Amino acid sequence: MSMPKMRRDMNAIARERLAARRAAERAATPAVPLVSPLAPAGGFPSLPPIAGLDLSSVAAGIKYRGRPDVMLARLAPGSVVAGVTTRSTTRSAPVLDCEAKLAAGADPEAGAAFLVNAGNSNAFTGGRGVESVEAVTAAAAAALDLPQSRIFTSSTGVIGQPLPHERIIDALGTLAAGLAPGGWPGAARAIMTTDTFPKGAVETAELAGGTVTVAGFAKGSGMIAPDMGTMLVYIFTDAKIAQPALASMLRRLTDRSFNSITVDSDTSTSDTLLVGATGRGAEVTQADEAAFEAALGAVMTDLALQVVRDGEGATKLLEVRVTGADSDADARKVALAIANSPLVKTAVAGEDPNWGRIVMAVGKSGAKADRDLLSIRFGDILVAEKGWVAPDYTEEAGAAYMKQAELVVTTDLGLGNGASTVWTCDLTHRYISINADYRS
Amino acid sequence: MSMPKMRRDMNAIARERLAARRAAERAATPAVPLVSPLAPAGGFPSLPPIAGLDLSSVAAGIKYRGRPDVMLARLAPGSVVAGVTTRSTTRSAPVLDCEAKLAAGADPEAGAAFLVNAGNSNAFTGGRGVESVEAVTAAAAAALDLPQSRIFTSSTGVIGQPLPHERIIDALGTLAAGLAPGGWPGAARAIMTTDTFPKGAVETAELAGGTVTVAGFAKGSGMIAPDMGTMLVYIFTDAKIAQPALASMLRRLTDRSFNSITVDSDTSTSDTLLVGATGRGAEVTQADEAAFEAALGAVMTDLALQVVRDGEGATKLLEVRVTGADSDADARKVALAIANSPLVKTAVAGEDPNWGRIVMAVGKSGAKADRDLLSIRFGDILVAEKGWVAPDYTEEAGAAYMKQAELVVTTDLGLGNGASTVWTCDLTHRYISINADYRS
Repeated sequence: MSMPKMRRDMNAIARERLAARRAAERAATPAVPLVSPLAPAGGFPSLPPIAGLDLSSVAAGIKYRGRPDVMLARLAPGSVVAGVTTRSTTRSAPVLDCEAKLAAGADPEAGAAFLVNAGNSNAFTGGRGVESVEAVTAAAAAALDLPQSRIFTSSTGVIGQPLPHERIIDALGTLAAGLAPGGWPGAARAIMTTDTFPKGAVETAELAGGTVTVAGFAKGSGMIAPDMGTMLVYIFTDAKIAQPALASMLRRLTDRSFNSITVDSDTSTSDTLLVGATGRGAEVTQADEAAFEAALGAVMTDLALQVVRDGEGATKLLEVRVTGADSDADARKVALAIANSPLVKTAVAGEDPNWGRIVMAVGKSGAKADRDLLSIRFGDILVAEKGWVAPDYTEEAGAAYMKQAELVVTTDLGLGNGASTVWTCDLTHRYISINADYRS
Repeated sequence: MSMPKMRRDMNAIARERLAARRAAERAATPAVPLVSPLAPAGGFPSLPPIAGLDLSSVAAGIKYRGRPDVMLARLAPGSVVAGVTTRSTTRSAPVLDCEAKLAAGADPEAGAAFLVNAGNSNAFTGGRGVESVEAVTAAAAAALDLPQSRIFTSSTGVIGQPLPHERIIDALGTLAAGLAPGGWPGAARAIMTTDTFPKGAVETAELAGGTVTVAGFAKGSGMIAPDMGTMLVYIFTDAKIAQPALASMLRRLTDRSFNSITVDSDTSTSDTLLVGATGRGAEVTQADEAAFEAALGAVMTDLALQVVRDGEGATKLLEVRVTGADSDADARKVALAIANSPLVKTAVAGEDPNWGRIVMAVGKSGAKADRDLLSIRFGDILVAEKGWVAPDYTEEAGAAYMKQAELVVTTDLGLGNGASTVWTCDLTHRYISINADYRS
């Protein structure tokens, strides 16, 4: 059954009213992005130099004008690199190139470089996209005196338009000349697209051989339902660690950080997380692994939450905790069903303690659930239990809680010990405004 | 890692600006629902009487004031009933009661009745919800002189609040007195919640024994990603057909109609589709089955598309066709990934021919796909092929096409013969306005 059979005429009066309403809505929504109300109050954190790491950024005019849009990170000889990339079947040419280079595991003695542009994702650009990656990595290898196999590139921005890679190549001289240990703020800004603030994080770990630093930056802020990590994340450390140990740590931590956030359930074609360890600081011995993993995990979760805090249009940060599930996998299904539900997300935007929509999301999740064993809490407030509203719950208490900028909703399924936590943001008019004319 | 670790302070200036913007947006969005611009131009169709069927409706004040909100359909002795209900694990008390009665397959000689209220879904209401269904069905059985096993009820509206079932019981006398063959428009209006127009459809089938009629009505219009059918659908026919034949037809047709639409990817706790066949008209012999199934399928698809046309905030109807997939199941995965993508739906709202978001959705769908074999069409316009934009495609042609109210996007995966079609609507400011304060 197809549409020709359907009545096609429009209600002319309704159309006119609709056009008027759209115009009014456009007028009411400022075109200049505000800084997210959930942005960290202190601004971009002060990130210390990492021995063996230099950063640089430049305004190359890829798409944006008058702002840095290409970032270069150079890692000294001896640095190991690990990474995780999107599992999207339509992933971009630079993602495929990074995957091949990570799998090949080239000799770290040469050093390495990460070269990233914003404004164009070089995704779905066919053979020409592959040629762009080849041209950029070859030019960067020559400019930095590195093997081409150690040049990792990422591109973020619009899909399906040819990357003007010559602008990146032309900028390589300026980028190389600008390399400096303190280049963090410019590098973090250069990778932004619809982000409203740059995202950085730092932790230290006390190892037997001394203190090491883990610091990095990330970008969001739409098309965020990572199937590995968020769109682009770069983390660096001076720790000395074997590549396989770093890679396996990264896989574990990614599931609890970047793979546990969602802005809009849409998965990017460009998701890339790269970690470079220069090895100039203390060694991560077996006894130190837990301490180092904790620091790396803290930086990853901090950056992941900053991505949610800058989710397109976000005004509320929602932590979705699920406990008592039959398995961790079931808990994750329920948590993602809640976090991705447009009805839950609009209720949060409206500060409406509409717990019925949580019940709906549990029901559609596909996880094992028994309606009459469910309980739901908003913060510490018991909202529902045993399949119905809790006797002491009041709508006033729920409504007061929902006014907070940061919310925790806990759903206990009452079945077993499976648990999962996922973070998301609300769904607001601004998300619509941003995405109904991002490209045009 | 939990939130206490995160910086909690807010950017005071950003908050103030946000509050001002929200106020402006609220002012720009009328509180009174318009009729959807996609509503059929002719209004509610003229539905003929069905021999053996009487309909009635009444304003019982369940939640709404001054409009009908309870509907009664009485089917004469000899009528068979088939139905499909939601698979949500948190489905409502009336859904569970319908399931039990459909499974028990009681004697049709007594006749049957469908009794439906809007304004309260009687979902997640614990033991009290079950008591409400018991009380209503017992009272209706007495009032209509039917066995309680032949009273099928549905409830739609807010979740988690006790159903004021005594108001339904008090209205039974008025409902019974008002039963009449021509009660279609009132019945269709009585089941509406956020719907902006009542939805009806009719077809006839020429059987060997004569012409039979299939007519029915449905409601939407949010929480629509049916896991069986949409929220509430009632279809009637005078055909004489065995219950098992009707039930198996219904399962087949549901997959191609109500299970192929999505407004917001959220699945209701109340989804119920009931079909009553009075058997007063011609018999559906084996030779007639295809003709009857075609008529029933046409009514179901017509109603399903009307639900999408009245999706909350909808201004565009999008038909998502997927061909060339490795299997039908893979085609469906891709079609649903496209149809449920907030980024695709906002692009449609913004009349933006942003085919990169289609590529993204293919990539995240989980279906087998090869980026370099993909092709995408907007209507008859070839937009992308072989992993990149088509040589003759122009942005102007795409933008002109997107201005239509009804759009067809075809994605060919170039792999096999799997195909699927799904219908959805755009995601607009009005969806946010409706759902950010539906309850409060």
